[in-house]
Amino acid sequence: MPDVHAAPTATQQRLKGVFSPVLTPFNADLSPDPDRFAKHCRWLIDQEVGLAVFGTNSEANSLGVAEKRKLLDSLLKAGIPAPRLMPGTGTCAIPETIELTRAAVQAGCGGVLMLPPFYYKGVSDEGLYRNFAEIIERVGEPRLRVYLYHIPPVAQVPITLGLVERLLKKYPGSIAGMKDSGGDWNNTKAFLDAYAKNGFDVFPGAETFLLQGMRNGGAGCISATANTNPGPIARLFETWQAADADTQQARLDEIRTTFAKYPMIPALKAAIAHYGGDAAWAKVRPPLVELTPEQNGGLIADLDARGFTMPGLRV
Amino acid sequence: MPDVHAAPTATQQRLKGVFSPVLTPFNADLSPDPDRFAKHCRWLIDQEVGLAVFGTNSEANSLGVAEKRKLLDSLLKAGIPAPRLMPGTGTCAIPETIELTRAAVQAGCGGVLMLPPFYYKGVSDEGLYRNFAEIIERVGEPRLRVYLYHIPPVAQVPITLGLVERLLKKYPGSIAGMKDSGGDWNNTKAFLDAYAKNGFDVFPGAETFLLQGMRNGGAGCISATANTNPGPIARLFETWQAADADTQQARLDEIRTTFAKYPMIPALKAAIAHYGGDAAWAKVRPPLVELTPEQNGGLIADLDARGFTMPGLRV
Repeated sequence: MPDVHAAPTATQQRLKGVFSPVLTPFNADLSPDPDRFAKHCRWLIDQEVGLAVFGTNSEANSLGVAEKRKLLDSLLKAGIPAPRLMPGTGTCAIPETIELTRAAVQAGCGGVLMLPPFYYKGVSDEGLYRNFAEIIERVGEPRLRVYLYHIPPVAQVPITLGLVERLLKKYPGSIAGMKDSGGDWNNTKAFLDAYAKNGFDVFPGAETFLLQGMRNGGAGCISATANTNPGPIARLFETWQAADADTQQARLDEIRTTFAKYPMIPALKAAIAHYGGDAAWAKVRPPLVELTPEQNGGLIADLDARGFTMPGLRV
Repeated sequence: MPDVHAAPTATQQRLKGVFSPVLTPFNADLSPDPDRFAKHCRWLIDQEVGLAVFGTNSEANSLGVAEKRKLLDSLLKAGIPAPRLMPGTGTCAIPETIELTRAAVQAGCGGVLMLPPFYYKGVSDEGLYRNFAEIIERVGEPRLRVYLYHIPPVAQVPITLGLVERLLKKYPGSIAGMKDSGGDWNNTKAFLDAYAKNGFDVFPGAETFLLQGMRNGGAGCISATANTNPGPIARLFETWQAADADTQQARLDEIRTTFAKYPMIPALKAAIAHYGGDAAWAKVRPPLVELTPEQNGGLIADLDARGFTMPGLRV
């Protein structure tokens, strides 16, 4: 058995910067479209944005295990560099989380973003600890880097400070950090204060907290709107100590707020469909629904009015 | 394409009575135990309780798709009659729900109990309609009988009157009924009043509402505690018009309330472990945890004090 308990070595890569939970394009028959997916990934990488494929905004939980494995393979075959990938691999069922996690590690992905099991509510930290411990032990890969995914508005099952403390103590080499999509800066700050000094990398779940995060030892951010506004978000990560950082943050917030007036996933897809000149991108899988024509018109008018563009998207 | 829109014919079987969301026994390594599973199913059938395998209390969402398919096959091989089965087949992802549903129908199961996709919250009835329609159309089996699963405390995604109305109108032959685990009698009554006359079978999600349900056109109940108290619950279903029906209901409530003082799934398993003399039954899969020794002692003492037994379980 490989020793999955060891502390990380100095040579191990740490994921840093801005990541996008990459939107998943669908064909008219609702099957995933690997070519549009790879093209979008390439556009994001070209703007220094990493690929948190199979996240909430990727409609990943509307995809089956086999679909996710096939899409990951298709990205690698298309030449997307595995170290830039942080696939979501957390499901409700331990065997499926193990399958997806092992596939990601063996493909050389830089890390995995792992939801807690999210069907049962009100579960204990002891139960969640056992869940993650079982997965880490059974994947049995020293290369595994787990980013815990805290998104209580959706999963309804939180990642607590106490859980992270127990996991970090037992698996310092495997527990690499977290994404905090709770939308509560005080919670993000509590994790930064407690564990950033131990090399536990905290990614706020939106660029809203990118600058605050960086000023408090954060690692970047993982944000839905990095699908549509990647360049400016990545620039703030690179230049957060520059004099204009607060101005940059305000501009990012303006664009984010515009998208947030609409259902986020359909709105992001609608923007890619419009600014990329590719109507097929608007498709979502049930239980989500596309924007209405009225919403679509409103979103584009709002974005145009703010001078929003997606340079290089239309090829 | 088979016509999945047709109304049901008079010869089609309707599931009625008391069903148990059958607990899933696990081995020490957390793998499912098909032999204990089949034995428990046989014990339930012998007491006139049907098998809603792969429900919430079955820890079904902690099982992978492959595990569920294998367990279903093992039950059929063990001689469990398929018409007595109502497997849970609803997952977050349409392709996996289709796979499980098709397997159940092709095996001859009496119906399937279908959760809505439960990861995304606040989704619209339009999105849920598209989800169920897509599944029914793609399964494409006239024999399919879907029981919609309303369990807002856990899934957090409700089945509404409006959704049922749209589905019944389009798929009168496929939409057979629902399980209402909301715990709100007024909601159950609203569905009974609206659709029971159309042959839409409403199963309250606990025996708590068995008698009220039967008095208002209900079809029985699907209840966690039918795993441990099957005989008396089935007897009330058979004799709900008898003079002692209210007394029977009060006795069922007493036992149910005793279990409900503890975490339900571990408590039910602990009772089977104790009264069946089979300690291995107590095992649960993370994120759940077993009862503490104190809880276990309290539960058994409480049940003993109420004269609770599980006749025929210990072989």
